[in-house]
Order: sequence, then structure tokens, then C-alpha cells
Amino acid sequence: MSTREMNILDKHTAIYTDYYQLTMAQGYYLSGRAETASCFDYFFRENPFNGGYTLFAGLSDVLELIKGYRFDEEEIEFLREQGFREEFLDFLRDFRFRGTIYSVLEGEVVFPLEPLIRVEGTIIEAQVIETLLLNLINFESLIATKASRIRMAAGARRVVDFGLRRAQGLGGIHASKAAIIGGVDATSNVYTAFRNALDVSGTQAHSWIQSFGDELTAFRKFAEIYPDRCILLVDTYNTLKSGVPNAITVAKELERAGHRLIAIRLDSGDLAYLSKHARAMLDAAGLSYVKIVVSNQLDEYVIRSLLVEQEAPIDVFGVGTRLITGQATAALDGVYKLSMCDGTPRLKFSENYTKLTLPGVKNMFRYTNGEGVFYADAVALVDEPTPDFIIHPFFPEQKSSLKHCTPEPLFHKVMENGEIMVSQTTREAAAYARERLSTLAPEHKRFEYPHIYKVGITQALMNLRTSLVEEFQRKLFL
Amino acid sequence: MSTREMNILDKHTAIYTDYYQLTMAQGYYLSGRAETASCFDYFFRENPFNGGYTLFAGLSDVLELIKGYRFDEEEIEFLREQGFREEFLDFLRDFRFRGTIYSVLEGEVVFPLEPLIRVEGTIIEAQVIETLLLNLINFESLIATKASRIRMAAGARRVVDFGLRRAQGLGGIHASKAAIIGGVDATSNVYTAFRNALDVSGTQAHSWIQSFGDELTAFRKFAEIYPDRCILLVDTYNTLKSGVPNAITVAKELERAGHRLIAIRLDSGDLAYLSKHARAMLDAAGLSYVKIVVSNQLDEYVIRSLLVEQEAPIDVFGVGTRLITGQATAALDGVYKLSMCDGTPRLKFSENYTKLTLPGVKNMFRYTNGEGVFYADAVALVDEPTPDFIIHPFFPEQKSSLKHCTPEPLFHKVMENGEIMVSQTTREAAAYARERLSTLAPEHKRFEYPHIYKVGITQALMNLRTSLVEEFQRKLFL
Repeated sequence: MSTREMNILDKHTAIYTDYYQLTMAQGYYLSGRAETASCFDYFFRENPFNGGYTLFAGLSDVLELIKGYRFDEEEIEFLREQGFREEFLDFLRDFRFRGTIYSVLEGEVVFPLEPLIRVEGTIIEAQVIETLLLNLINFESLIATKASRIRMAAGARRVVDFGLRRAQGLGGIHASKAAIIGGVDATSNVYTAFRNALDVSGTQAHSWIQSFGDELTAFRKFAEIYPDRCILLVDTYNTLKSGVPNAITVAKELERAGHRLIAIRLDSGDLAYLSKHARAMLDAAGLSYVKIVVSNQLDEYVIRSLLVEQEAPIDVFGVGTRLITGQATAALDGVYKLSMCDGTPRLKFSENYTKLTLPGVKNMFRYTNGEGVFYADAVALVDEPTPDFIIHPFFPEQKSSLKHCTPEPLFHKVMENGEIMVSQTTREAAAYARERLSTLAPEHKRFEYPHIYKVGITQALMNLRTSLVEEFQRKLFL
Repeated sequence: MSTREMNILDKHTAIYTDYYQLTMAQGYYLSGRAETASCFDYFFRENPFNGGYTLFAGLSDVLELIKGYRFDEEEIEFLREQGFREEFLDFLRDFRFRGTIYSVLEGEVVFPLEPLIRVEGTIIEAQVIETLLLNLINFESLIATKASRIRMAAGARRVVDFGLRRAQGLGGIHASKAAIIGGVDATSNVYTAFRNALDVSGTQAHSWIQSFGDELTAFRKFAEIYPDRCILLVDTYNTLKSGVPNAITVAKELERAGHRLIAIRLDSGDLAYLSKHARAMLDAAGLSYVKIVVSNQLDEYVIRSLLVEQEAPIDVFGVGTRLITGQATAALDGVYKLSMCDGTPRLKFSENYTKLTLPGVKNMFRYTNGEGVFYADAVALVDEPTPDFIIHPFFPEQKSSLKHCTPEPLFHKVMENGEIMVSQTTREAAAYARERLSTLAPEHKRFEYPHIYKVGITQALMNLRTSLVEEFQRKLFL
């Protein structure tokens, strides 16, 4: 079963953008700069969730949308109504993205300040894709990262995404996919499972139980129809007095018919208390194979508390709102900044030194130490040899030698002349994320005050930035 | 310009759902209950943002999707692969939603525990739409409410949604629409403006300035192309030393050519300090008509601080992340509960008394007092006369007389036999929200510890719930 191509924007990809992208594009066009060469970088400045790393995701969706980027007549008419000029509208009619994109792979472990995507093309084509690129990379990376934290807390136990009903509208489509990249096992979201060839999962709602009036009949009917994949929701009336005893009755009936109840599900109340008592009741009935699924406002902290502090006998976690929205962090604040224009490196100046951008066309390398653990990342200018030391991007006195480490280039050419060169399925990205996370030291993965991973720049890049900063300062103080 | 019909799910509406909706539907079908009559209620238990009200939104999108609800062959094949049975797949092939929906209007001011949507139909059709209904109503209501708070803080000043790049993926499509319903004036999101016939807005990015190398040239070029709608971004290098002086130069050049600079925009730094100094510089240059636009991590609290505490001379607010994601509340926790099945009222029991549902088919009334202000809402059984007192849903001793008030029914039949009966455009919903919010007393609208609005139930509804609760308790204690 392969991934299905679905045009998720009803073909209106080109207008999934901020208005100013189009006014600027017209500005470039009318000022005769339509063909000016440019380079933009995507990067973010802070890991979400006060964490020590971010999982990069969203690339395959972005590439698919960029590949299909075009304006149809209805959209051009809409832009005409907004006052765009005819000569520019003619230009848009044939417009395609024909640039080249380098990127880290989907599922890569990444860190603040690193240029993760490098877009090379005319200034118009590189500019107009900004909004859709930021929208999807920011969001999918946020959710993949959240999912990886939930996965860590749950250990080897099964985790299922139940979030669609509380997702931020259609954001659920990409969130369910990003959750799988981050390590969640399956999703209740049928649309995303269909689109991305993922495993679906689900149990039953309280309404099923209520509709039968009595719980035992409701359980029996469900077991009759799904004898080999029956999970019973036991908290509609009273978990320990009614739900679990009725589930045990039905489990025994299933046994006599040669089947096995898969699990019971707890969706309210104190999950530690209820799971312990339910486990004891199931075990006493000889049903130690029946698993316990829990759901209700779970996240990595609640799961850790249930498993580590409470030693709750839980087998499966159904996670909803806080996974699918990334609560408590609503957004990854990634940005897209011009680094080269017309052959010249460009800098976004700032009086706040930590907000200076890294100028010029750049490459990214990762260094693994003798123990096979990620040690540091280096950002270099594109024509430099692989560096053997890096400099802290804001404290130039702080240098790190990379001599004992093995470098690996992080950028792949994922699009050339508008054609997709590298594509990963969701499962491939998930496998890559698992592998890369396993090579990241635990101190970068802990939830509280994680150790900061080393990201440095080369001497040549530092020199370039310093010379551009000095140039601006001279101008400002003249 | 009217609203465009766009199938935002690439026609895959029916699988935009949780897997268990379909397994339950098959269960109902195979147990011979496909035609069983049912009624479901949508309601939520807590206002978002610790606020005193919620703005209801998302209805028109939900109705449009329900109207187009059907399974195509590719989806049926996917369900076959998941093990669904042939007879049920045949049933799905011709499946349409043919039920009836009552709802409060889009833009209504609503409160916790109120049944806001009542879906009547067969248990299958009413069940399978749950996920899409929750997904869109929860999210659009969250964002419309957030927008209305930002609107209150900004007073009569212009507010523009700049959020698409930080939206939760495609959630931005509905969020930009919901923001308009809540009182935002325009959006940068071209897709949503195109789809819902809204006003677009935008300025320029730092990359425009950087691409020219020097700021004055960049400003001049933009003013040359957009002489009558020029807004200049003044913080690329140094706001007060470079950006504002260059903007003044260009404003004077525009004046000489018979045009007027619209505004400058500040996107970083201390917005209070910078706006005051920029205002003074503009005024000293005789440019008191040039407005000041600010953006950068704004929300209702930051805007209130800028205007009230800092008295910052700001004319327009561009609001992004915190509007479009509803930060700090990620989701409205609305639920969809069975209230009637097969002619019998149904209750979701809970040991937590405040989580009991309201059983039976119900109506909603709003009461306006002698001063023309909303006084209380009543939830009644559908065949009751308009009540003249209400009872607190959890403290039966607490009663309120409604004799001095004028009642108004809140429910409208918005869908009948699967056809849309009432449709509001985004602008109409926004106008309705403005009108309804103006009739809500200020004490319910304040950000800190808002006064709780009275929502009560009738004696008959209370009696029904009590009798069902007692029935459950008898069963549990047998």
C-alpha cells in the first residue's frame, strides 16, 4: 500500500500564502528583478517544550505542494480584483517553481539556529513559497517533536493518536502524520491513514454503550461483531462496579467461543487507581492477557507520572488534544530569511546580537564522536572544506575541536528545477527519526533542563558575518 | 463577491473521521439498528482563556461538509482492506446524511453546558459526523473567541491577521475565517480571503529590504510601485536611526508626487518605546497622517498593555501566532453526547456530578432583561413551554426567576433531510457576533475573573435527569 497523492488544498496551492508575498513578487517583477538569483534559509531559534532537540518534519508535504504550485484563471481573476497589474498576472499564468532545494531529511534531529532548508532560485520563486513552507515545516516539526517525547515517556508501550476531534481544524491531517514520524504507533484519523498508508486504530464511544441502555448487552453485541478485535470501554456508568465486571463476563463468553478479549479502555477518573484495580480484577478472573488502554488528557508528563511514580499497569496510551495541538507550545517559531541575493551575501541586522542571521550560501555537517554519539553540528559556507573546529555563533572565544569526530553532510538535494529528487514515506521518516534519536545522548532528551547540543559556525562564516555587521555599523554611525 | 464553494478535503469528507465511528457504524448496521432514531448534543464544559463567554463558529463549514458526505470507491476499497464487511460497504456506497440539525447561529455568544447543536437522525448518520463536527466547531469557536478578545483590547483600531505561517498546518484556513467572525478586520491569508470573500492585507518582508542592499532604495522602489498603498517596514537595520528617517524621506518624495505614505511598520524591539519615538519623528516632519502598524508576538494582553499602560500611539495591530493558534488555550474541549435513542432519553452517568449529561431532546432560550442586556439562558425539554424560572444544573436549590425578562429561542433549523436551511456568510456571522457581544454585559467580557453568566435548566429537565440518575444508582447498588 503506497502513499496516495491527494491535493489537499483543492488545487489552490499558490494562494495558500500571505498577501505580501504576491505584492512583493509584483514589486520584484515590475522593478526588473524577476530573474535575480537568491538564497533563503529556514531555521528556528528555540526548541519547543523547553526541550533539548527538535524533530524535523513536513518536508514531503512541502515538496508536493511546491511541485504543484500554479495559478489558475479563477485565482488570477481574484488577484485582478485586488488591483494587481495585467503584465504581472500574465507572468503568473505560466509561473512554476523551478528552483533547487537542499534540506535535512524528514525525521532528522535538529537544533536552534541551524539552516535546515536552503532554497535557491529567482527571488520571486524563492519568496512566494515562504508561507506554505513555514506553515507546514513549523507545524509538523512541532508535532513530531511532541510525539517523540510522548514515545519516550511510554517506553515500549503502544501509543495511539486519538486527537482529530480536538485538532486545530484541518491541521489534524498533517498532525496525525507528524505524530507517526515522531514515534506514535497508529492513528484514529482515517483520512491521514488513507493518505499516508498508516495503521488505523480505535475502540468504541460512550454512545455505543448508551444506545443499548444496558452495558452488558452493549458489550455482548460488540463482541459478537468483533470477536477477535474487541476493546471494551468500561467507564460509561461505573468502572469498577459495572464496566470491568461486565467486561469480564463478556471476556469469558468470548473464551468459550474460542476468542480472546483484546483490552478494556479507561477514559475518565483516576487512571492509576482504576488501572490497578481493574488489573487485579482481570487477573483474578484468569484474564491476565487482557490489556488495559487508557486515555483522557494525556501527555508525556502524565504518562511518566502514571508509569514511573504510580507504577500503573497500563499497556496502551490513547493520546489526544495535547499531542495533536502540541500543547503547551502552540507553534514552532521557524523563520525564512534571505541569505544571498544577486551573488552577494545578505544579513538581517539586529541590535539584539542573538537575532543576527547567518549570511551566505551554507552547508551543514554533523559530527559523531568515538562512542558513536552525536557530538556537534557545524554550519559552513558552501565552498568550504569540512571544518575541523567550530566557533560558538555568539561567543567567538568559545571554540570546539572536531578532530576526534566523524563528519557527515546533513543536506540532501531534495528538489532540482522544481522536480522532487528525494521522497520519504511517512514510515521511512519515522524509521529515520527512531534511528537518529537513538544516537542522540540522553542528556539532550530529558524533559527538565536538557543539556544544550553544540552548534557552531566556521571561522570563514564568522568572518563574513563580522564584516557585514561592521559595514552596517559604519553606515549607522556615519 | 460571494463565497466560493471549495471542497477543502479533496472530496474525502467521509473519511475525515475517527476509525471507531466506522466500526461502530458497522456494528449498528450488523445488529439491525441502522434505522434507530437518535439525538446527539454538542456542548463544552469550560470557556477558553479563563474567559466569561465563547463565540460559536464553524457551523457553515460543518454543514457544507455534511452535505457532501459520501464514500467513493477508493475509500470503500481502503475500508475493505481494514476488514469491513461487504454488506456494510454496500450500505456505505449509497450512504448520505439525511438527518435534521438545530443549532445556534454562527457568531452567537454561548456558555458552558449549553447544547449548542442538536443532531437528529438515525444512529449511524448522527454518529459518523461526530469527528468532523467536533473538529471544526471546537477550533473555529476557539479562534473566534480569541479574536473577539483581541478586538476588545484594540478598541476601534484596525486589527489584521498575519498568522498563516505559524498556524497549525491547514488549520490556518479556518482560523483566518474564524478570526474575522470574532472581529478582526482583514487577513493576510489569500486562500481564505478567496474562499470566503474577505479583505486581504499585507505590507512587506525584511527580505524586500535586504534584497536591495540599501534601505532607502528598497523603500523608494516599493513606493514607486505602490504609491497609494505604501506601508514601509522600518526595523530591518535600525528603526530610529535608519528605518524611520528613510521612511520620512520617501514620504516627502511621495507628497511631492501627490501621494501619501500610508504607514510604517514596527516588527521588533520595544514597541511602546519605538512607536512613541517614531510618532514624534513623523509628527515633527509634518507627517501626522502616517499611521503606525505594529506586529510581533501580540495578543489581547500585550495590546492592552501597549494601549492602556504604555499609551503607545499605535494605529494598527498585526496579530499572528497567538491569534491563529489560540495560545495559551490549544483547544476547546467540546463533546458530542447521545441524549435520546430509540425514543428514550439517554444519560452519560458519571461519579463526578458536574460531568453528568443533560438527557432528552432539548431546546434553548435566551432571556434579555429590562435594560436590554442578556440575563440568563434556559435549557428545556423540547415539548415544554418557555419556562419562567430556571434551576442551577448542579445546585437544585439555586433558582432564578425569569418573569421580568423577554425570551428568545436560540435554536434554528439549519439542516433538514440533509439540505442546508440556513447559511450565513463570514461577514454576516461577524456582524451577528458584533451585535450579540454588544448585548453581553461587560462583567462577562473582562479578562480577569469574569462574572459567570447564568445558565439553568427547567424543572422538567431536572426531574428527568434525577430519575435517570436514581435508576443507575439503584442498578449499581443492587
